[in-house]
Formats: sequence, C-alpha cells, structure tokens
Amino acid sequence: MIVVKVGGSEGIDLRAVCRDVASLVLEGQRLILVHGGSHRTNVVAEQLGHPAQFVTSVSGYTSRRTDRQTLKIFEMVYCGEINKGIVEMLQALGVNAVGLSGLDGRLLEGRRKAAIKIVQDGRRRVLRDDYTGTVDRVNTHLLHLLLDNGYLPVVTPPAISTGDEAINVDGDRAAAKIASSIKAEQLIILSNVPGLLAEFPDESTLVRRIEPSRAEEFMAHAQGRMRIKVLGAMEAIREGVGRVVFGDGRVEAPVRAAMSGKGTVIG
Amino acid sequence: MIVVKVGGSEGIDLRAVCRDVASLVLEGQRLILVHGGSHRTNVVAEQLGHPAQFVTSVSGYTSRRTDRQTLKIFEMVYCGEINKGIVEMLQALGVNAVGLSGLDGRLLEGRRKAAIKIVQDGRRRVLRDDYTGTVDRVNTHLLHLLLDNGYLPVVTPPAISTGDEAINVDGDRAAAKIASSIKAEQLIILSNVPGLLAEFPDESTLVRRIEPSRAEEFMAHAQGRMRIKVLGAMEAIREGVGRVVFGDGRVEAPVRAAMSGKGTVIG
Repeated sequence: MIVVKVGGSEGIDLRAVCRDVASLVLEGQRLILVHGGSHRTNVVAEQLGHPAQFVTSVSGYTSRRTDRQTLKIFEMVYCGEINKGIVEMLQALGVNAVGLSGLDGRLLEGRRKAAIKIVQDGRRRVLRDDYTGTVDRVNTHLLHLLLDNGYLPVVTPPAISTGDEAINVDGDRAAAKIASSIKAEQLIILSNVPGLLAEFPDESTLVRRIEPSRAEEFMAHAQGRMRIKVLGAMEAIREGVGRVVFGDGRVEAPVRAAMSGKGTVIG
Repeated sequence: MIVVKVGGSEGIDLRAVCRDVASLVLEGQRLILVHGGSHRTNVVAEQLGHPAQFVTSVSGYTSRRTDRQTLKIFEMVYCGEINKGIVEMLQALGVNAVGLSGLDGRLLEGRRKAAIKIVQDGRRRVLRDDYTGTVDRVNTHLLHLLLDNGYLPVVTPPAISTGDEAINVDGDRAAAKIASSIKAEQLIILSNVPGLLAEFPDESTLVRRIEPSRAEEFMAHAQGRMRIKVLGAMEAIREGVGRVVFGDGRVEAPVRAAMSGKGTVIG
C-alpha cells in the first residue's frame, strides 16, 4: 500500500499525477490519493470578497486563518472543484475513483483547537473562532471497504472534529496519519519543489536523505513549513510507515520518480 | 427503502430536512438522500463573474446553460458547499453520512447531449459546448455497499457521461432513477412549494393526487418544470417505485409530512 499526497500549490501538474496514479493502480498497486487545494482557495476567496489571511502562531507556525466563511470556501475548492476534477480525470483514465472529505464517514477525525495564540503586529492575540485542528483518528474501515471493492479513495481535508464541526487540517500530516493508520509501506508527498530544500526556495539545496535517527539534529535547523513536513514524516515513520519521500509534483510520472528515490527520502 | 430528494431553491429548510432524515435513519429506516443546489449556484456564479444563464429548448424546457466554467462552479456549490454542509449536519445528528457526486464510483452515469437545440430571441440555435445529460445507470453496488455498512449516502449531481465528462443532470430525475434502480418503496421530492401546483406559484392550487393511470391526461395541461417533475415521477413508478410524493421542504419534519401524504401523491 502507498499513500500519495499531492499539494495544492501553483505549478503542480495534477494531470501528470493522475496519469501516474492510474497506471500504478491499473498495475495492481494498492493506493490512496490525498490532495490539497491551497492556491485555488486563495484565488476563489479573493474573488468571493473574503481574501485569504495567514496567521503565525506564537511557536512560529504559519497557517490559514479559517473562520466559518473561509471554511465554506475551503470546502468549495477542496471538496468541489479539486476533488471532483481529480475524480473525473481518474475516471477518464479507467480508475474507479471515489472522492471523500474527512467529514464523509468521519474519515479524518480530530480535535479542534479551542484557541489559537497568534502574533499579530508584534502583539499576542487569541483566536477563538478558528476552525483548525489535527487528525487523531482515521476511519480505515471505510478506506478498506472501498479498496477491497475496487474503488480508489481520493481524500481531501477538511476533517471532522470530535464536536462534529468541519476543521481545516494540514494535508501532509493528514496523509501521514492515513499512511500510518493503514500501515502503508510508503508515503509520497508531492509539491511544487523537488523535495525538502535546506534553503527554500533554492532548488540546488535539495536534501537528498534524512536518516530517521538523525532527524532531531536536522530539525534543529529546519524552519516553518519544512519543520512541519519533517515532523509529519517522522510521526509516520515512528508509527510504522516504511519510508516517506518528498517529491516533485511538476514532472512527468511524479509518483514513480519519487518511488525510485528522487526527492528527499526519509527512512 | 426510501429516497429523499431535497431541492436547492431558496426557502428550503435544510436543517429541518436533516433532523427529519436523521431521526428516520436512527429508527432504522433505510434511506438515501439526494440534494440540489441551484439557488446558491446562481449566487456564487454571479459573485465569480460568470452569472447563471438559462436556455429554453425548442421543445419548451428551461435548463441551466452549463459550459465548462459553469460546471466547475456547479461542482463547487453542489459537491463542496452544500454536500459537505449536509454531511456535517448529519454527522452532528449522529448519522454516519458519506457525500458522493455522480462522478464518484460512477454513481450516476448517462449520456451527454451532443447538441442542444435552443430558442434564443425567437431564433433557433444549437449549443455544442454544453455539459448536460440524462442519468441512464445507477451504481447500486456502491450504494448498497455503504448502506450495508452503516453509512448514509448523500448524493448530488453532476453525473458522469459515458465519455467520462462531468455532466449537469436534473436532480429530480436523478433521484427518480436512483429510486427505481434501488427498488425504493417511496420517492419523496421536497421543494420550496407545498407540492405540484396547477397554477404555479399559487399554493392554493395544490394538486393532491395524480392517479398514474390518469397521468397522461394530467400531462396534457402541465407545463415547464411541472411537466419534467411528473415525467420523472411516472418513469419511477413505471420502473417499480411504489409511490412518489412531492412535499414541502420549508416545514418542520418535512419528510414525515410527505410520507404521511401531505403534498402531491402520485401512485
């Protein structure tokens, strides 16, 4: 089993990802596809007059400000436009895809953060109307049910909170949780760069390999998004995923390239 | 088994529909929920600078002009905003809902109309870039798989064409096809009026009952949307559905009210 996560940044070739996924599935590879939609959400939010805002937590992480209106726009793009676009492409490639959000069948369940402490204009502030959280539990029953019956699950945030609210969750970490819950051998995470970059966005600083035993050391230098990515990968490996590869989502056959070790290999 | 279709017009109380559906499901009623999203699609299309257009076919039927961009907006609203909103509400009511479009698992498959002959400003025109069609086949395997495993399917257009394109299909007729394919005893269709109205929108002209044997006679007087609605209902009954009720989606417990015979009963 492999879990493939494809990000929602500009430049990613979703068609190439779908072609590659379809050819792997038609060869008999058991696979779950997870996707994002951040760039299009920014575009649509702007068009709908509710432009995206990003907040920085006191611990230095940046995330999308997700009030209830943002969440509805998020669902329109992730669950509507992108998810159904991918399902349509896969169907045309002969794969019987089924698109699901984390709400459907409580596929991705977790805690909503009751309060987010952010730093704004140098001051600390607490947000209480934000709908973000973390995936703690994956409904593997529903995933196996679909896979065992010849359907390819195409999964997207939002998740559902333990209090039954839709919550925005990090797509990479959701994919990592799916991979560990379903005991995948590999987790492939595709974005619009060639892998983890020591000095983002300088692509010549690609990190080719991180030994899990030396991840702590690596994390001491990592920042922002990179930190979250390595954190998610290490979580997955600790919970039994064979290896995690951060690969380039802009190339032809991006999944196979990552499976062959192109990008950043952890594990 | 009952199939409940709730329209997407203004005024329908989706929360009341979900409460009623949830209480029926928790009592053990086998049920599939189908929904629309026309009003919100009009609003969002306007906001996104691609306002809704409606065309009238040479045979007198009015339908949404669905070019590819409209189809993407349609998916955002139907599959994103509305579908996930309903799934979230049902989950909060203790029902393990799974939202699906007709693309997912080829749930609703049919022919795309190659060309639509319309009348515009008194002249005939042919549209060849329209993505509309009719559902011919329902993937009952996927519906049974979910129902048998404790999930409530929440189904929405678009459907998938035999050529693997997303197509806009009439929600009432899609629900009728689901009902007949899955051999439902009842099909309940809820809208923002009390049922079929002899003189739309005069609610005092509610048609309380149409005998299937006298439907032809009735159809001679029916016009526009009403014609399509009776046509769909008659198709369902011919294909084995026990009865069809057109009920009011604006009242408390709207499904139970329709099941008890309030509205227009056919069959």
